[in-house]
Amino acid sequence: MSRTAWISLTTDYGLADGFVAACHGVLARIAPAARVIDVTHLVPPADVRRGASVLAQTVPYLPAGVHVAVVDPGVGTARRGIGLAAPGGLLVGPDNGLLLDAAEALGGITAAVELTNPGWLAPVVSRTFHGRDVFAPVAARLALGAPLAEAGPALDPAALVRLPVPVVRAEPDGFAAEVLTVDHFGNVQLAAPAGLLDGLPERVRVAGDRQLPERVRVAGDRQVSLAGSGGVPRAGAVAVRGHTFGDAAAGELVVYADSAGLVALAVNTGRAVDLLGVRPGDVLTVTAS
Amino acid sequence: MSRTAWISLTTDYGLADGFVAACHGVLARIAPAARVIDVTHLVPPADVRRGASVLAQTVPYLPAGVHVAVVDPGVGTARRGIGLAAPGGLLVGPDNGLLLDAAEALGGITAAVELTNPGWLAPVVSRTFHGRDVFAPVAARLALGAPLAEAGPALDPAALVRLPVPVVRAEPDGFAAEVLTVDHFGNVQLAAPAGLLDGLPERVRVAGDRQLPERVRVAGDRQVSLAGSGGVPRAGAVAVRGHTFGDAAAGELVVYADSAGLVALAVNTGRAVDLLGVRPGDVLTVTAS
Amino acid sequence: MSRTAWISLTTDYGLADGFVAACHGVLARIAPAARVIDVTHLVPPADVRRGASVLAQTVPYLPAGVHVAVVDPGVGTARRGIGLAAPGGLLVGPDNGLLLDAAEALGGITAAVELTNPGWLAPVVSRTFHGRDVFAPVAARLALGAPLAEAGPALDPAALVRLPVPVVRAEPDGFAAEVLTVDHFGNVQLAAPAGLLDGLPERVRVAGDRQLPERVRVAGDRQVSLAGSGGVPRAGAVAVRGHTFGDAAAGELVVYADSAGLVALAVNTGRAVDLLGVRPGDVLTVTAS
Repeated sequence: MSRTAWISLTTDYGLADGFVAACHGVLARIAPAARVIDVTHLVPPADVRRGASVLAQTVPYLPAGVHVAVVDPGVGTARRGIGLAAPGGLLVGPDNGLLLDAAEALGGITAAVELTNPGWLAPVVSRTFHGRDVFAPVAARLALGAPLAEAGPALDPAALVRLPVPVVRAEPDGFAAEVLTVDHFGNVQLAAPAGLLDGLPERVRVAGDRQLPERVRVAGDRQVSLAGSGGVPRAGAVAVRGHTFGDAAAGELVVYADSAGLVALAVNTGRAVDLLGVRPGDVLTVTAS
Repeated sequence: MSRTAWISLTTDYGLADGFVAACHGVLARIAPAARVIDVTHLVPPADVRRGASVLAQTVPYLPAGVHVAVVDPGVGTARRGIGLAAPGGLLVGPDNGLLLDAAEALGGITAAVELTNPGWLAPVVSRTFHGRDVFAPVAARLALGAPLAEAGPALDPAALVRLPVPVVRAEPDGFAAEVLTVDHFGNVQLAAPAGLLDGLPERVRVAGDRQLPERVRVAGDRQVSLAGSGGVPRAGAVAVRGHTFGDAAAGELVVYADSAGLVALAVNTGRAVDLLGVRPGDVLTVTAS
Repeated sequence: MSRTAWISLTTDYGLADGFVAACHGVLARIAPAARVIDVTHLVPPADVRRGASVLAQTVPYLPAGVHVAVVDPGVGTARRGIGLAAPGGLLVGPDNGLLLDAAEALGGITAAVELTNPGWLAPVVSRTFHGRDVFAPVAARLALGAPLAEAGPALDPAALVRLPVPVVRAEPDGFAAEVLTVDHFGNVQLAAPAGLLDGLPERVRVAGDRQLPERVRVAGDRQVSLAGSGGVPRAGAVAVRGHTFGDAAAGELVVYADSAGLVALAVNTGRAVDLLGVRPGDVLTVTAS
């Protein structure tokens, strides 16, 4: 660890309780010289996929250090706490798939351990707050330079819990991809790498997928409550290809390569999520006509 | 004060204005080497009880230092600004009961002063923003190592304003206790120490109190708007005793010792507050049948 | 720049994504010793006026340093990125009027540049995230002590984009002024300097402006949805003059000089914005009768 040790925190703890501060406090008590960057604490409760995405897309811009993530509906059950090493940093959190996209973004897993060393944990470990009692104390010790291997026994990276791979596939005249995230501005990010836009014309058609799996179809039915009076995209909407919001007229849909290198949809001076009436997990097709 | 001075902030200022940053700025100008941990700024406006609870439950995990809390509907009136010393740290804020539970958690009050020394305050003290003009400058000077006694004249700790003690009492086959807080996950924390669960069976009954005082009954009537279509617990609900959320089936109520050592109610993959239709100040009974 | 370099951040990025953390990360990588104060990230999306007000009212209380502000609906279009020098600090952000009130609060613009030096920017500059790729790297270099003049060619301060000046004017027996901001507590801040209250009696009349320009009238019509069942102030409401919230009876309107030196309206233990049914951009008259 360099002179300044950096720790990042990503949770679904919200900002109204003292949970985040308790984690900061534990870090400060053990590693007072470490500096902490809060990624977000507003991951929707128990939304592991969302937590994994926001961490993976942010971590390339953070200083090398220890990244703690806690979106952990299984806290206190048999699910394991894990620590991962990658060329670009260390990751600490529950073994539920939350950390793996970020580990990939940091160069891939080079070592994995289960966090079982009691000397690294709080003297009394609660059953419901492992952020404070397990993950923060482990991260603080790593920030002090203690080797990951001392945190517990090695795990086979291939045996770690993984999230389902988001849907991305070629379609005639274009592609289909799952909605990965919807950001604060209502921009809709697809799981599709931006290169899939190559070869598409200046105006494309965005529509709901006709072969929705049951899970996605159910999500689609519920999308009315998300989008208010927003239209369902199954009928299709036209989007202009652009590079930024202002490349479309006000109120119009633009499809572009976003700042994470993925295909995204925005409405200039508006909210694409409301126009499209989608939510994460829905599948959209982007085609030439 | 040690090499790194730590300051914590707990307010009802919200995050949309510059109020919190102005406090950070005042701290940074006076004590630039101090490090600041934000506990929360989302205490509901003027909810002194909630501010007191979140601070008291968080402060044991923070590094020793100066804890500033401002939930202060009486700002600029005759209410006093106070500083308290305890074995575990210093506390600064209004004399309205906000600081006393935290002082208790830090080992009890050993000294109290009224913050009247004009040399410790902003050159011009506004009548509506004592966080910026009184409490932050005082905290910064304490963080620099100035003695509390110089902040103003000593007060008798017994004369400080105190909040009503939350209801907790034995009942036939169990206990009754006031709802102290509802957290971000909808978990309902009672004012009852976790030891009150000892001797209760594996399934317990949770119900609204039949002898509700008028204040609480009114709160109960209003709870519909809080809980939407949630059921009123007066008829009673069954909870399984457990240690963590996953000890109940999905959608079921679990009663457990929470990470602050109090009795709490949660719904596995759900929100207990919505199921129970309660809010802080309501009284629940937890009984064997 | 002094031993500790300070950077502040004001954006409309929200707190649910990793956008703010990515900016923190870029700052930390380039200028690891700099300390960062978040002013707010909850400026309503694209609300440049609100961002300008909150920054200008907060910056006098921040330590001298570099202030980054990003409320930037024109990101990636022809709008320029700019850096400004003032006696009290440096400012970095888009050329859309966002920075100018703060520059005034810091003593006035002494130099302005366009941020075009590619050596100061991210190696690849996205078209939609200049906070991360332009403004944060520039701020970090300024915090390290690099001269502003190296960030790009000088601009004529008179040629910078400016926001419309908020309405403030004398009226018979008082004044009219635009609602500048509504804070977390529902307090309504007018664009009027507090001195305009001098000479008014102890009880004043607050009413909607009868000569509303079209833009404001439309905003007035929409105010119902903002204020719920709140009354429209055109009929007028009585406010007591005071110095703090508690100077009015509970539920009553008080008009006072707020902590930024402007005229504001509050309701003791209530929300003035709901009582008045106004929103930023509306014009209110405050008169003797």
